[in-house]
Amino acid sequence: MTEFGLIDTIRRMFAAIPRNGFDGIGDDCTALPLGDGSSLVFTTDLLAENIHFLRSATSPRELGGKALAVNLSDVAAMGARPVATLLSLAIPRDLPDGWIEAFMEGYRTLSEQHAVGLVGGDTTASDSGLVINVTAIGRVADRCIKRRSDALPGDLIAVGGPLGESGAGLQDILAGRCDTPLARIHRNPQPQVEEGIWLGRRPEVHAMMDISDGIASDLRHILDRSGVGAQIDIESIPTSVAVETAVSGGEDYKLLFTFAAEAADTLARDYATRFDEGFHVIGRITPGDRLEWLLDGVPRQVDWQGFRHY
Amino acid sequence: MTEFGLIDTIRRMFAAIPRNGFDGIGDDCTALPLGDGSSLVFTTDLLAENIHFLRSATSPRELGGKALAVNLSDVAAMGARPVATLLSLAIPRDLPDGWIEAFMEGYRTLSEQHAVGLVGGDTTASDSGLVINVTAIGRVADRCIKRRSDALPGDLIAVGGPLGESGAGLQDILAGRCDTPLARIHRNPQPQVEEGIWLGRRPEVHAMMDISDGIASDLRHILDRSGVGAQIDIESIPTSVAVETAVSGGEDYKLLFTFAAEAADTLARDYATRFDEGFHVIGRITPGDRLEWLLDGVPRQVDWQGFRHY
Repeated sequence: MTEFGLIDTIRRMFAAIPRNGFDGIGDDCTALPLGDGSSLVFTTDLLAENIHFLRSATSPRELGGKALAVNLSDVAAMGARPVATLLSLAIPRDLPDGWIEAFMEGYRTLSEQHAVGLVGGDTTASDSGLVINVTAIGRVADRCIKRRSDALPGDLIAVGGPLGESGAGLQDILAGRCDTPLARIHRNPQPQVEEGIWLGRRPEVHAMMDISDGIASDLRHILDRSGVGAQIDIESIPTSVAVETAVSGGEDYKLLFTFAAEAADTLARDYATRFDEGFHVIGRITPGDRLEWLLDGVPRQVDWQGFRHY
Repeated sequence: MTEFGLIDTIRRMFAAIPRNGFDGIGDDCTALPLGDGSSLVFTTDLLAENIHFLRSATSPRELGGKALAVNLSDVAAMGARPVATLLSLAIPRDLPDGWIEAFMEGYRTLSEQHAVGLVGGDTTASDSGLVINVTAIGRVADRCIKRRSDALPGDLIAVGGPLGESGAGLQDILAGRCDTPLARIHRNPQPQVEEGIWLGRRPEVHAMMDISDGIASDLRHILDRSGVGAQIDIESIPTSVAVETAVSGGEDYKLLFTFAAEAADTLARDYATRFDEGFHVIGRITPGDRLEWLLDGVPRQVDWQGFRHY
């Protein structure tokens, strides 16, 4: 059974059980409205050795940062500010002295940067590999929550930064080249936390998520949830690597969002004033349900799939 | 480094990072006051194959129930009602067809029993055994939160049910006897969810936690946090197994709580009216910091330690 097949099975099994105010599965996080105009959002991610990382190809400090980064990215992709995490570790007995402390140092540095508390956790032995689970909690004004389901025909589609570098870095690592700049990008994702919170406050931004599997896969989530299609201008995709890697490489952790076309100039100007780099418009939302790839305006047949960890 | 040593190290590393309203580590859950007289509480637990369970000695349905039960127990031990969980699974490729569905069926049955929603999660492959992480969320009126730190000299100490049966069942399982009644108790913990919520509403109940490592270890947490000592009447410990197993066997998941002695009769009467079984008074809180074990009123030298998973 695939990951998505299993998730569908689980969803059906639990459909009749009350969710006690937590909204449905389908976004980067589930949201709990508190009734005072704000919500908490929750996400959880598990990283398993040899599936998500090779202990031989990452430093513990980098891995500690990455374990947190992927969760902060999910929270910010809803427009929420991450406030706290809970961390579970299953620790193999063969870890060198100081390894966990270095891991925690990486986790701490990113926690400090975004003022996110570590408020709970669990540690245990593992008789096989290292396993890390992070649950992240964010807060957001209800009116600022961004979902995958709110894209509208005519919206422009943008990404928050260059794509595919992490995927190309993973290719480097798997080929044994762990010291390249791209490999370092793969090991040190920079979640767009402040960008996500800022975009959440802009009503002209409609749908938002973070890119973890490549836009060829992730954009489909927005299209399916919103009941719309899209055209992507291949030449507009910001990347320094092969375009196929840019659209189907995993773990970019850049924001993917749609916004009202008439607000494009003010949104771009205000964003550029606030952040060092601008965002990149790569296409537009269309009626229907098709995802079309255009090169210089001409539709291309491509077979791009999103990245799969397994 | 021991589990407790690692937790202390982590606590020190994160002491300067804001907790954004979440209270300190030290109870079964961390609590977030919402400002409306209620709080949310959070806990997370990781179960790793061959550390916490043997796949050959449990059914998937039992394991699904147990993974949830230990978390519901933590929530209820704060006096809170569990409302939602997030579930992460790292799934080995060699699991038989239908195994995960049976696991989820066990998780679902207990979720339904306590009306707890499954609101998020993550699934991934594993090349190193089955790993399960559950994060549970509860709600509670602030005035009903019970902590480990609120025991007072003169309080009576009680437990919510017989102790040691799970520990004895684990001994059976490790000896290859997986079909005994005690082994089944070990695999099917029954968290005292309604009992914890009910006790949370009683102001005469002061400190509370659940028993996961045996009272020889767990009671020390209440004593240390509350700055008190205790006398335990060995002959009052409710158990059908050896008393050493009763006090140091793991995974009972019964409630351990202290309450004002003068309220003993009304509390016991009301509890017995509400629940099928009464609770069991096993001793009293004393000034000082010593934990004394008495047999027929005479102090005994014992060397009982709590259960360690590793």
